[in-house]
Amino acid sequence: MGRFAGKDILSTENLTRDEIEEILEEARWMLGVIERRTSLSLLAGKVLATLFFQSSTRTRLSFESAMQRLGGSVLGFASAESSRASGPRAETLEDTIRTVDQYADTIVLRHPETGAARRAADVAEAPVLNGGDGTNQHPSQGLLDTYTVWHEKGTLDGLTIGMVGDLRSTRGMHSLVHCLSNFRSRLVLVSPPELRFDDAVKQVLKSKGVEFSEATDVEAVVKELDVLYVTRLNKEGAGATYEALLKTYPRITLDLLKKGKGNLIVMHDLPRTDELGLQIAAEVDATPYARYFQEMKYGVAVRMALLALTQGVVG
Amino acid sequence: MGRFAGKDILSTENLTRDEIEEILEEARWMLGVIERRTSLSLLAGKVLATLFFQSSTRTRLSFESAMQRLGGSVLGFASAESSRASGPRAETLEDTIRTVDQYADTIVLRHPETGAARRAADVAEAPVLNGGDGTNQHPSQGLLDTYTVWHEKGTLDGLTIGMVGDLRSTRGMHSLVHCLSNFRSRLVLVSPPELRFDDAVKQVLKSKGVEFSEATDVEAVVKELDVLYVTRLNKEGAGATYEALLKTYPRITLDLLKKGKGNLIVMHDLPRTDELGLQIAAEVDATPYARYFQEMKYGVAVRMALLALTQGVVG
Amino acid sequence: MGRFAGKDILSTENLTRDEIEEILEEARWMLGVIERRTSLSLLAGKVLATLFFQSSTRTRLSFESAMQRLGGSVLGFASAESSRASGPRAETLEDTIRTVDQYADTIVLRHPETGAARRAADVAEAPVLNGGDGTNQHPSQGLLDTYTVWHEKGTLDGLTIGMVGDLRSTRGMHSLVHCLSNFRSRLVLVSPPELRFDDAVKQVLKSKGVEFSEATDVEAVVKELDVLYVTRLNKEGAGATYEALLKTYPRITLDLLKKGKGNLIVMHDLPRTDELGLQIAAEVDATPYARYFQEMKYGVAVRMALLALTQGVVG
Repeated sequence: MGRFAGKDILSTENLTRDEIEEILEEARWMLGVIERRTSLSLLAGKVLATLFFQSSTRTRLSFESAMQRLGGSVLGFASAESSRASGPRAETLEDTIRTVDQYADTIVLRHPETGAARRAADVAEAPVLNGGDGTNQHPSQGLLDTYTVWHEKGTLDGLTIGMVGDLRSTRGMHSLVHCLSNFRSRLVLVSPPELRFDDAVKQVLKSKGVEFSEATDVEAVVKELDVLYVTRLNKEGAGATYEALLKTYPRITLDLLKKGKGNLIVMHDLPRTDELGLQIAAEVDATPYARYFQEMKYGVAVRMALLALTQGVVG
Repeated sequence: MGRFAGKDILSTENLTRDEIEEILEEARWMLGVIERRTSLSLLAGKVLATLFFQSSTRTRLSFESAMQRLGGSVLGFASAESSRASGPRAETLEDTIRTVDQYADTIVLRHPETGAARRAADVAEAPVLNGGDGTNQHPSQGLLDTYTVWHEKGTLDGLTIGMVGDLRSTRGMHSLVHCLSNFRSRLVLVSPPELRFDDAVKQVLKSKGVEFSEATDVEAVVKELDVLYVTRLNKEGAGATYEALLKTYPRITLDLLKKGKGNLIVMHDLPRTDELGLQIAAEVDATPYARYFQEMKYGVAVRMALLALTQGVVG
Repeated sequence: MGRFAGKDILSTENLTRDEIEEILEEARWMLGVIERRTSLSLLAGKVLATLFFQSSTRTRLSFESAMQRLGGSVLGFASAESSRASGPRAETLEDTIRTVDQYADTIVLRHPETGAARRAADVAEAPVLNGGDGTNQHPSQGLLDTYTVWHEKGTLDGLTIGMVGDLRSTRGMHSLVHCLSNFRSRLVLVSPPELRFDDAVKQVLKSKGVEFSEATDVEAVVKELDVLYVTRLNKEGAGATYEALLKTYPRITLDLLKKGKGNLIVMHDLPRTDELGLQIAAEVDATPYARYFQEMKYGVAVRMALLALTQGVVG
C-alpha cells in the first residue's frame, strides 16, 4: 500500500514535492474516467461521509461526484442545521466524528473553526480530508489549483504566478502557496496591504528559496504573469472593514488581461460573485484566458485521487 | 442513438405526438422495473445532479428514485439555503450550472424563475431536465400526467378531459395542455375567470384543432368528463388575491364525482392540501375514481424514461 | 421468507424473545461486514427512503450507512423544511407516505408526533421502520442498546442493568425496556421522581415477572450494576420544568464509576451534551467502562439486520 494509505489530508504544509507530484499524476489518470463519463469500482462498497458544518455547493458536490465515480457511496449533511451539530445542546465535534467514524470509511469535513479538521483526525480512525477549516487550510482546493496550473501549463517550475486578492483569510490560497513552495516558480502576491499573507507564510517561502514579491495593483504586474489566480474577499475574515476593502478590491476585466501575455491563464476558486457583481467580468468567460470551469473538473479528479490514495486502493 | 440523446427537456411545447408516444412507451417498459422493485444498470456509473432552488418532496425524490432504479447515483441540494446559491453574494445560476456540469452527467433543475431551465441549458453540456421553472413549465409533470391518462384509459384520443383549477399559474398544467394538444381529446378547462390559461395557450389549441371549452363550475361539467385533473391554487401566482380566490376554488367531493361517469378518473399533481384542508376529500381515496397515487408511481417510470432517453442508452 | 419479511418495525412492545434473538444474531453477522469495511449486494437495486421530519445526525446517517453496506441506495429529506412537509399548506403525513411509497422499497420515518409511524405503516405497502415518533418508541435504538449489552456481556440474562435518566420521555428507553422485559435481568430504574416510567411500563415488567426497582440516586445503586445506561433529559418532554430538572439530573463521572464493579460498562444513546456540558465526563471515554461509541457501530449492524429482515432477503 502506498504512503497515503490511512493518512489524513489536513493541510498542504507538510506535503513534499514528491508527494504532490504523486497526487497530480494520479489525478491525471482519474481525469480520464471523468472525461469518459463513467466510473470505477475501486471504492465499491466504501462509504464517504461529507460533514458540512458550513454549506457549500462546490466542495461538497465535487467530493460526492468523486466518490461516486470511484464506485463508492455517500452520506452526510449539507449544513449544521440539518444535524444535531448546532444549537446550545450541540454535541462536541469530537463526539460527532467518533460517531460518524462508525458509519463511514472516509470523512470530509468543512467547519467554520480553524483546527477543526485536526481535532477530527485526532479521534477518527477513518482518514479525514479537510474540506476547509476556518481561515486556515483547504488542501483539496490548493491541490486542484496546483493541478490546474500543471495541467494547463505543463509544468510547475519556471512560471510567474500571480496570487491576487484576499491572501490573508482565504484558506484555499494558504493551501496553494504551500503547494507552490515546493516548486521553482516565481510568485507575485497582489493584494491590498491589509490582506497580505502573514509573515509565517512569507518565512516559509524564504526558507524554501521561493522567489516572490508583493504588489497592490494587479495592473502594474499583469505583464509578468503566466498565471493569474484571483479569489474573492473573505467576508468573515474582513469583518467590519469588508465594505471599505471591497471598493478597492481587484476586479478582472478583459482589458486588463489584454495587457498581459497572450497565453496568460486566469483561475478562480469560485464563486466569483460579491455585492459589486462578478469579480471576473463575464466577457472573459469565452476567451482562452478563462480556465476556472476546467478547474472545477480537475477538482473532481484531484478529489478522486485523494480518496483513492488515502483508502490505499491506488498508490 | 435515439433522437433524445443529449437533448434537454425544458418544455413540452415543441414535443410532437410521435416523440411523446416514444416517451410513453419507454415509460411503460420502465414501469415493469418499478413493479418488480428492482433496478437496471443502464446508467451505472452515471451521476445525476438534482439542483432544487425551491424545495420539493415529490419531484426531487421521484427523479432520485428514477436515477437509482437505472443504476446511477445522485448528488445535489434540496434547497437554495444549503448551497452557495442564495443570499446577496449568491453566484449566478450560469456559474452554478457550469460548475455542476463538471460533476454530473445530467442535471435536474427546479428554480423559482421562469426561464431558468433555458438559461441552464444554454451553458450546460449535460442534458438539463426542467424540474419546474417559475410558473412556466414542468415537463416531467405534464408527461407523467399524460402517461397516467394513457395508462388508465388506454388512449389519449376521443376522451373528454377536465383540467380544473389554477390554469394560469400552474406550470404542470401548462406542460400538460401542450402534451394533450397533440392528441384528439376534448378539453374542458374549468377555473375561476381570473385563473384561465392565457390567450397564447388557447391560440395553440385552436391552431392545432383541439376542441376545448371553458367553464367556471366543475359541477356543471362533471357529467361529460372521462378524466378530471385538478390542481391546487398557486399561492405565489395568486398574490394578494389568494385568500379571496381560495374561497371559491374548486374542491372535489365524492358527491360531486357520483354525478359523473362511472369510469371517471380523478388525478392531482399533489400536494392536495391548502389552508382549507384537502382539495380532494379523503373519502375519494379508497374509490376507483382516485388515481393520484398511481400517478406518483408512473412519475418515476416517466422520469426513468426521460433520464435514459436523454443519456442515449435507450431509444 | 422469514417472519419479518414485509413487516413494519414500529415498536418493541410486541417483539418476542425469540424474535429479538433472531435480530441480534443477524446483527452479529452483519457486524462482520462493517468490520471488514465492505458491503453486501443483498439489497442491490433496492431504495430506502429516510424521511426525517425531525433532524438527526445519528439515526439518519446510521440507517443510510446500513442501507449502503447492504448494496442499496438512499433518498429522502433531513428536515421538514427541505420538503413540502412543513408549513400551513403542508400535506398530510399519509399523503407524503403514499407518495414516497411509490419511490422506495422501505421507509424510515422520524416524526415529532407519537403514533406517526403507525399512521405511516397503515398506508404504506413498503415496510416502515420507526426512526422515532414523539416520546413513544424508537425501536432500532432499543434493539441496538439490547445488542450492545448482549455483545459486550455475552448474555441478556442474570445481569443487573441500570437505566438512568429521563425514563418518562425518552423513546429509546421505552423501546429498550420492552426488549429487556423478555429476558431475565434485573432492572434498576434511576431517575428523578418526575421522570419515571409510567405505570403501564411497570405493569408490563410485573406481568412478565421482570425484577425491577426504582431509585433516584445513581450513586446509591452503582455498586450493583453490570450495565449503566444513561440518557439525556428530553427538553420537549420536560417543558417548563426543564431548567429545574437539569440541575439535579444524573451526571456520570469517573469517580462515580470507580465505586461500581470493575467490569461495569457505560452506555449512552448520544448526544451526551446539554447546557451544562457533557453528561458523561470526557475522562470516561478512554476507560474500559465506555462503550457508547461501539454502540454506534453496533447500531449500523442492527439496522442492517432490520432492513434485510424486513425486505425478506435474510431470515
